[in-house]
Amino acid sequence: MRSAIFGGPQDITVGERPDPAIEEPTDAIVRVSLACVCGSDLWYYRGLSPHDLGAIGHEFIGIVDEVGAEVRDLRPGDFVVTPFTYSDGTCVLCRAGWPSNCINGGGFGNRGMDGGQGEAVRVPFADATLVRVPGSNHSDEILRSVLALSDVACTGHHAAVSGAVGPGMTVAVVGDGAVGLSAVLAAKRLGAERIIALSRNPARQAVAREFGATDIVAERGDAAIEAVREMTDGLGVESALECVGTSESMNTAFAIARSGSVVGAVGAPHDVEVPIDVVIFRNVGLRGGVAPARKYIPELLPDVLDGRINPGRVLDFETDLDHIVEGYKAMDERRAIKALVRVAPAR
Amino acid sequence: MRSAIFGGPQDITVGERPDPAIEEPTDAIVRVSLACVCGSDLWYYRGLSPHDLGAIGHEFIGIVDEVGAEVRDLRPGDFVVTPFTYSDGTCVLCRAGWPSNCINGGGFGNRGMDGGQGEAVRVPFADATLVRVPGSNHSDEILRSVLALSDVACTGHHAAVSGAVGPGMTVAVVGDGAVGLSAVLAAKRLGAERIIALSRNPARQAVAREFGATDIVAERGDAAIEAVREMTDGLGVESALECVGTSESMNTAFAIARSGSVVGAVGAPHDVEVPIDVVIFRNVGLRGGVAPARKYIPELLPDVLDGRINPGRVLDFETDLDHIVEGYKAMDERRAIKALVRVAPAR
Repeated sequence: MRSAIFGGPQDITVGERPDPAIEEPTDAIVRVSLACVCGSDLWYYRGLSPHDLGAIGHEFIGIVDEVGAEVRDLRPGDFVVTPFTYSDGTCVLCRAGWPSNCINGGGFGNRGMDGGQGEAVRVPFADATLVRVPGSNHSDEILRSVLALSDVACTGHHAAVSGAVGPGMTVAVVGDGAVGLSAVLAAKRLGAERIIALSRNPARQAVAREFGATDIVAERGDAAIEAVREMTDGLGVESALECVGTSESMNTAFAIARSGSVVGAVGAPHDVEVPIDVVIFRNVGLRGGVAPARKYIPELLPDVLDGRINPGRVLDFETDLDHIVEGYKAMDERRAIKALVRVAPAR
Repeated sequence: MRSAIFGGPQDITVGERPDPAIEEPTDAIVRVSLACVCGSDLWYYRGLSPHDLGAIGHEFIGIVDEVGAEVRDLRPGDFVVTPFTYSDGTCVLCRAGWPSNCINGGGFGNRGMDGGQGEAVRVPFADATLVRVPGSNHSDEILRSVLALSDVACTGHHAAVSGAVGPGMTVAVVGDGAVGLSAVLAAKRLGAERIIALSRNPARQAVAREFGATDIVAERGDAAIEAVREMTDGLGVESALECVGTSESMNTAFAIARSGSVVGAVGAPHDVEVPIDVVIFRNVGLRGGVAPARKYIPELLPDVLDGRINPGRVLDFETDLDHIVEGYKAMDERRAIKALVRVAPAR
């Protein structure tokens, strides 16, 4: 099959990889329809995070092609969305609501697993991992938003849930990448009344506003902190969402978080120092991490299918599998928020 | 009046300080009956944290001596327990349940405020700060436990609340000081089924067991982590409580915390690094800080007065005001868990 192949930093090509086959009776093979490029793929592309050579990509939707003998809830032809991690659904951590920390789980597109940026993927624990998408003849807009549920929309949602966002609250989102914008959307969906997006990029500001941001802070660093404090009577916001993963963004999030609140953090961390004095002396908590997408997808999918939320709006660049490197480049050069990759016709 | 006086590291004397007087109509003057020495006082005594010269001490109970014109709920003669921070009770942070972060609040025994380790204290916002202790002729044991509510018992409770301890859970407590032991007691009170105390001091192990610890881990560092993991099927505990405030203790807490759980941290931090990779990749949260004692005291006081909990049990050394330095020394040399200071007869 055709697949994107990670050959090292700055080296994404498309070539042949072995067709996936059922290995365990709980596996399914999914033919990929749409995939996308994740901000975390960029870390690999830039050589800032290690990644195995070979398959890459963990965000995809597609059609079930084959199922193992013990798969009960899915059959060939089912249209499915795949969370970016697979999980057995039965371990103590899955049962506690943490499928992305499944004891027997893992991610796609690395460490020997097929990547979403290819024509087909072997999915372990298919019944527990995959979510069937009801209905048919969905519009392209809906499909793009279903695709967003594979990671970015759930990751933004996890930021908001971790930051305990609730009705009527004032929230700030640090980071205007696809995850930060998704966090704006999630905060709005969870009832936040005032949503301050930190962004100085006009195109991203526009998406933030469309997603529900009521205020934009274009300053950075100390000036951004001062601006948010001024907007909140000097108290800071009731929930600050950290969607970058650097020490600067973490410090900004804590500095603008109201005493007693929780910073919801989902940025993949790169040498991040947590300002412990703020944690302890201002009682500002820190929650978040790798989103339990498998838990969130069933909750968010109806809103996507009914058009109440359109998280796919972050996909502002489009290419096909053969030209996937263009998606990486567009994101690397910040010409695009997030790249959609058309792999095969979606139904 | 007589008062302990902080003269710098290793320099605690007892001398004269001005008698406190009502300055604001919301003030009360409290004559101190019992005080104690806090672990955080030791940081000052050791020269590891800065402290103003002069008054010191923030844990005390006593009798209201005088009230300002606007004090409504208290009168001279009332027996009261004082949380270690004062708070106005009306600001947005107080109303949100964070009196220890009150916008107009502060602590005792530093920055111009009278210390609890003295004969009398001016208490701002008396109605909002002080908690009247009902009943009379309480036993010395009960009084010691009421005194513990001024800080250490509430701080241990805050660790457990922050770590989301609940019925049936497996909890580990890192730190066997007075706060750590109080966290054991709090975890037990909140229904934890299994409580693992990390301690290698036999006297403290005994108090931990009395407070509800079901298991003791005497190892340290990596060996302690391994021991706790072995005791928990390799998964770690459902709540890890950090009651020290060092990088080692924080790392231990995160290492033994189950994925998806929250580390409850109340140790005053000294160059603490939070293991952010555990936060993000294992979804282990971090909550805690300066305990909102004023919120907790009314909840815990009935249990103390009825003898259901005896947090004063951590006070295993006793002295009077004139000999208070002996309490510091006993704690500094780890001969005592925590020192009680008899200042005046309690009723």
